[in-house]
Amino acid sequence: MISKNKIKFLRCLEIKKYRTKHQKAFLEGKRLIDEAINARANLETIWLTEKALNSYSNQNLIAKIKSHKILYESISEDDLSIISNIEASQGIIAEISISKYLGSKITDIKDSNILILDGISDPGNLGTIIRTCSWYNIKFIILSSDCVDPFNLKCLRAGMGAHFYLTNIINAKRKEIIEYLDYNAYDVCSASLEGNSLLEFNPNNKWAVILGSEAHGLHDDFHIFNKITIAKHGKIESLNASVACGIILDRLVNK
Amino acid sequence: MISKNKIKFLRCLEIKKYRTKHQKAFLEGKRLIDEAINARANLETIWLTEKALNSYSNQNLIAKIKSHKILYESISEDDLSIISNIEASQGIIAEISISKYLGSKITDIKDSNILILDGISDPGNLGTIIRTCSWYNIKFIILSSDCVDPFNLKCLRAGMGAHFYLTNIINAKRKEIIEYLDYNAYDVCSASLEGNSLLEFNPNNKWAVILGSEAHGLHDDFHIFNKITIAKHGKIESLNASVACGIILDRLVNK
Repeated sequence: MISKNKIKFLRCLEIKKYRTKHQKAFLEGKRLIDEAINARANLETIWLTEKALNSYSNQNLIAKIKSHKILYESISEDDLSIISNIEASQGIIAEISISKYLGSKITDIKDSNILILDGISDPGNLGTIIRTCSWYNIKFIILSSDCVDPFNLKCLRAGMGAHFYLTNIINAKRKEIIEYLDYNAYDVCSASLEGNSLLEFNPNNKWAVILGSEAHGLHDDFHIFNKITIAKHGKIESLNASVACGIILDRLVNK
Repeated sequence: MISKNKIKFLRCLEIKKYRTKHQKAFLEGKRLIDEAINARANLETIWLTEKALNSYSNQNLIAKIKSHKILYESISEDDLSIISNIEASQGIIAEISISKYLGSKITDIKDSNILILDGISDPGNLGTIIRTCSWYNIKFIILSSDCVDPFNLKCLRAGMGAHFYLTNIINAKRKEIIEYLDYNAYDVCSASLEGNSLLEFNPNNKWAVILGSEAHGLHDDFHIFNKITIAKHGKIESLNASVACGIILDRLVNK
C-alpha cells in the first residue's frame, strides 16, 4: 500500500523545483514505463492498480518488471486518482531517479554528434525531439537554459521512454556551448528559415545541430554558425520544430 | 458587439456535429488567423478585444484584415472568455466557412501527389502533418473515416493555418481510396516499421503515401501496397507519426 506521504511526494514531482530538489521524476502510462524498463532507466518503484495487475494484456510487462527486479506495489484506484495526470489512466505509475541527468556537464560528452536545443518551450515538441534522437541514435542533447524541463510529464510522455536511451541530456549556457563546440572542433550548423540547403552541409568531423525556439527562432549568440535550411516548396511560413528536427537528423545521419 | 446567440453558436463549434451541421469552424489566435488570411481562407467574421485592436503589434494584421475586406468587430474581454479555449488568449477569434471541405469527394483530386492518413487520432499530430504538407506543397490529403476531425481547434492550432493552403482535405472510406488509387495508376507506398528502405521508393508517376494510426499502425486493407521504412539507428520502437510524415515527404518531394 502506498503511504499518504508518498502520494504527496509523487504529486510534488509535477513541479520542476521539487524534481530538481529530490532528483526524481514521475512516470505514468504503460508504454512509457515499458520503454523505460527496456532502456534500463533507473526506476525505483512501480505502482499498479489491481485491475492493471490482473489485466491479461499487462502480463508481459509484469514479467519484465519481475525479471528486472524492479520494486512494484499495488495502489488503489482512489489513491491513483489523486496522483494521476491522465484522463483515462491505465493504472500504472512509477518513480524514477534522474540524478544522472541533473549532475551532468558538457564535458561528459565523449566524441559524439550532438543536438543542441535553444529555447524549445513546448514539452510535446521537446519529448518528440528526444524520441527522434533516440531513433537516430544521437546520444547527447544539450539544452540551453531557456528550454522547458525534459522531465515534465508531458515531455516524458511525448518522449515515449526515449529519454532513457540517451546517454545524457545536459543543461548548459549558450556561451559554454559555443566554447565547447569550438574547442572540440565540431562541424556546427544551425537550422534557420534562411540559409544554405541542408543537403549541402557535409560535415567532416563530429557534428552538432542547433535548433532554435518555436516562436523566436535562433538566439543571436548562435548566428556565428553556418545556417542550414530545409527546402520549402509551399507557402506556409515554417515547419513544426520537431518535424524540422526529424528531417535534419534523417539527412545528417544517413549521409 | 457580439450577440448572445452568436456566442452560443461559436461555442457549439467546439463539437464536430455542429461544425458539420453549420459548415463552420472556429479559429483562435493571432498567428493562426493571420496565416488563414494569407491562405485566402473563407473567413466570415473576426472579433478582436479593444486591447488587441489597440495593440501596436497587431496593426499589420488589422491593416491586412481591412485590405482583404474581412468583416471584423470588437468583443469584450468577458464575452471572449466565454468562447476562448486558450489560457492566455491573444484576444482574437474568427468564424470560418468549411463548406468547401465538407462537400469534397475523392474524384475532385486532379493529377496530384496525395497523402493518405488512416486512423490518425491525435489532433496535434494531424495539425502538424497538415502543416508539413503545406510546406512541401502537397495539395490533397485523404482521411479515412477513423481520423480525428481536422477542424477540431487543437488540430487547427497545430496546423498554424496550413489547412487553408491545401486544395482540399477529403474524407473517404478505405475501399474507395484503394479503388481510386488503382484506377488512376498511382505509385503507392505505406509507412511501416518493417518494409523496404524509404530511399528505394522511386515513383515513376503520381505517388500516394499512406500513414497509419499512432497506436495500431496500418489497417489490414492497406497491406496490399509496398511498405517503406525509415532506417532506424537506435533502439526505440517507433517515431512520432508527424515526424515520420515529415521525413517521408522530404525524401519524396526532393527526389
